[in-house]
Amino acid sequence: MDNRAIGVFDSGLGGVSVLKELQQQLPHENFVYFGDTGRVPYGTRSRQTIVKYAMQDIRFLLSKNVKMVIAACGTASANLTPEYLEGLDVPFCNILLPASQAACSASQTGRIGVIATSATIKSGAYGKAMRNIRPNAVVVGSACPLFVPLVENGFIERGNPVTRMVAEQYLAPFQSGEVDVLILGCTHYPIISETISDVLNGRLPLINPGVETAKQASALLVKNNLLRSGNEPGHTEFYVSDNPESFGEIASLFLGETIAADVKLVDLDNFAADTGNFGAVPS
Amino acid sequence: MDNRAIGVFDSGLGGVSVLKELQQQLPHENFVYFGDTGRVPYGTRSRQTIVKYAMQDIRFLLSKNVKMVIAACGTASANLTPEYLEGLDVPFCNILLPASQAACSASQTGRIGVIATSATIKSGAYGKAMRNIRPNAVVVGSACPLFVPLVENGFIERGNPVTRMVAEQYLAPFQSGEVDVLILGCTHYPIISETISDVLNGRLPLINPGVETAKQASALLVKNNLLRSGNEPGHTEFYVSDNPESFGEIASLFLGETIAADVKLVDLDNFAADTGNFGAVPS
Repeated sequence: MDNRAIGVFDSGLGGVSVLKELQQQLPHENFVYFGDTGRVPYGTRSRQTIVKYAMQDIRFLLSKNVKMVIAACGTASANLTPEYLEGLDVPFCNILLPASQAACSASQTGRIGVIATSATIKSGAYGKAMRNIRPNAVVVGSACPLFVPLVENGFIERGNPVTRMVAEQYLAPFQSGEVDVLILGCTHYPIISETISDVLNGRLPLINPGVETAKQASALLVKNNLLRSGNEPGHTEFYVSDNPESFGEIASLFLGETIAADVKLVDLDNFAADTGNFGAVPS
Repeated sequence: MDNRAIGVFDSGLGGVSVLKELQQQLPHENFVYFGDTGRVPYGTRSRQTIVKYAMQDIRFLLSKNVKMVIAACGTASANLTPEYLEGLDVPFCNILLPASQAACSASQTGRIGVIATSATIKSGAYGKAMRNIRPNAVVVGSACPLFVPLVENGFIERGNPVTRMVAEQYLAPFQSGEVDVLILGCTHYPIISETISDVLNGRLPLINPGVETAKQASALLVKNNLLRSGNEPGHTEFYVSDNPESFGEIASLFLGETIAADVKLVDLDNFAADTGNFGAVPS
């Protein structure tokens, strides 16, 4: 048993779609969510910058004494390879491995599609992960750099004509029937999954990384005997690096309920951290 | 006479549209351009964060010993009010005042439209600037938060269907004939000015802030006796906080010519700056 909270971070508000699944599957756990809204988006940045930002995010969560860290950000998941996590003395979960495992299980043909940010597609991380699980897997990726700004600017209702037109362009590689399952490789994408599915005529099963990540986090807590004791409902603290007011508004839409707690502003340049053996941010 | 370079900064690559006008109007000047590509976009962030980032950008330019600073960023221009510039001992120019003066001169009716990022519109800075020049000016603003990602992701050719559909939505407030001139209040927007003009049926004169800013910078150099001596053609150094390779590619498209010089990567957390009396970055 361990009554500390679970730390969850994302470049902004997309990770709230993962948090929602975590809260549903682990209703007695407490969470600390950090959204790096002062530097969102990560998906168009270089690997070096993404790693630097993600490690700062983890250091912030560690300063809140969390018992587990979850990278609820597709871009951070794809770029934060194990060498950067040396010295992290709590269990770590990203969204990439659970989504890859689910896709490899769901696919009949072993031909799997991935849509994600430019940085995630460029990293090739989904291909590597899936060929580890299923060596003959063939992975077809398509970068969708406008999906994050479309979601963050509210173009999210089913069939929104702008989002639909952009989706038709980005999803063209999957119209030929070449793949038989599609990973939503960015935590913003479940918000527009109905439009994505419509453009594909409902033909492809979509893997929601939040659902799969919550299952894996749950298994890790059980295995390491880290579940919170008792049956009290858990609560969530929210921290962001900019614009706490608008984060609260938009995240409430994503969660389907009002965020009761205050959303607190953090200055990533100035917070007290005791991060144990976890490495300093690489320059 | 002063042979030092002119410093120009922007949140990313939009400021290159201003740089292009500066190079044309001041062909014998040297420039140092800084694009904060590691933290772009500014236009969706809070005022506090925008000011912090912009002041760091200016400190970097001062570390390059520039003789003048130009905020080639609509969002920084609107939010960096004079109190933040105390102690800056070189002339400073933003894009807001020159664009406002041009619009006030061009308007017959005094009813002036502005399109810009959310943060610029929210600041109300264009309204304040224009009522100082023309007290009865009526300013109608429309935030266009998707234009920057559309431009940065290459949806820029005239009549691009996605950009056109988004523009029709954002420009609806200007279809009724209420205003008689429209300021492109963000340096990215001149890149899609043909599509903007088409959506408005060519009915409204568009104010390009880069053109107006270059005129004002030129006048300031003359007035302060800061022109570079001699008739050698000037050159430009480019610095960015992330992704120098892709900056070079895209900025070359904006400039209409290849960027000959290397684009250098800067770590904004680590550079040697002697910024004289210019204030420390507020926390």
